[in-house]
Amino acid sequence: MSMLSETPMMPGQVLARGVCRHLASLGFAPVEEFVPERGRRVDVMALGPKGEIWVVECKSSRADFMSDGKWQGYLDWCDRYFWAVDEAFPTDLLPEGTGLIIADAYDAEILRMAPEAKLSGARRNALIRRFATHAARRLHALRDPEARLDAWG
Amino acid sequence: MSMLSETPMMPGQVLARGVCRHLASLGFAPVEEFVPERGRRVDVMALGPKGEIWVVECKSSRADFMSDGKWQGYLDWCDRYFWAVDEAFPTDLLPEGTGLIIADAYDAEILRMAPEAKLSGARRNALIRRFATHAARRLHALRDPEARLDAWG
Repeated sequence: MSMLSETPMMPGQVLARGVCRHLASLGFAPVEEFVPERGRRVDVMALGPKGEIWVVECKSSRADFMSDGKWQGYLDWCDRYFWAVDEAFPTDLLPEGTGLIIADAYDAEILRMAPEAKLSGARRNALIRRFATHAARRLHALRDPEARLDAWG
Repeated sequence: MSMLSETPMMPGQVLARGVCRHLASLGFAPVEEFVPERGRRVDVMALGPKGEIWVVECKSSRADFMSDGKWQGYLDWCDRYFWAVDEAFPTDLLPEGTGLIIADAYDAEILRMAPEAKLSGARRNALIRRFATHAARRLHALRDPEARLDAWG
């Protein structure tokens, strides 16, 4: 049984699950709820086979999208930026120059590839290191839930 | 309950658990059974707060140590290399120029710090990217066990 299914998922998390499955099928390694810098949290960040970094924000409704005043700040933390929405979402709302993924709980499809704006080498390396630390710590916490992981800071 | 406790742990894995707890307390993010390159698998690799990479091989007995003909190959994949053994292990066997950790299932302690042999920047970045991919994929598989993760290659 899925560990996620033990607590009900929020609508955005349902989309994120399908997005992560699709990204994995493309050879990407995804993590959810990644914090690229203090005060920012992206729904999905994925690391590609050539070190590419993609960010996907999952929007479950028009209201969810309209209340997001932060998304432009995420553009600086990825090579390509996508929205993921369900089939009912009014995609005309979404800004140009971004990618579009249609998702459900089980899978997803890239409808419009995001344009590429390559990160600098230094930022990419710093981001991959942070991604590595985040993923390893969360993995450790799942594998050994009795560990006292106080030192995360 | 620990996910690991669902299947009995091998003696080396018991030590690895204590090692990972201690490394986490030092601010490192550990992963177990990491493959730095095809054909090599290290018991524990940990990424430090400054991007340091430590490798720890866990040896449960003299026989376990004596049968390891590969360890010198691991030196090229870390900044510091350690052995982790239990209190009963005959530590005189262990080669000079390596670190020593005494571990049990619950915690560990560094008895002798390993000398530092710094990785090149290019190898460090490649290794951290591989570590990130490994940790994110294993995390994804635990979070969404029903995902078909065929594309890992």
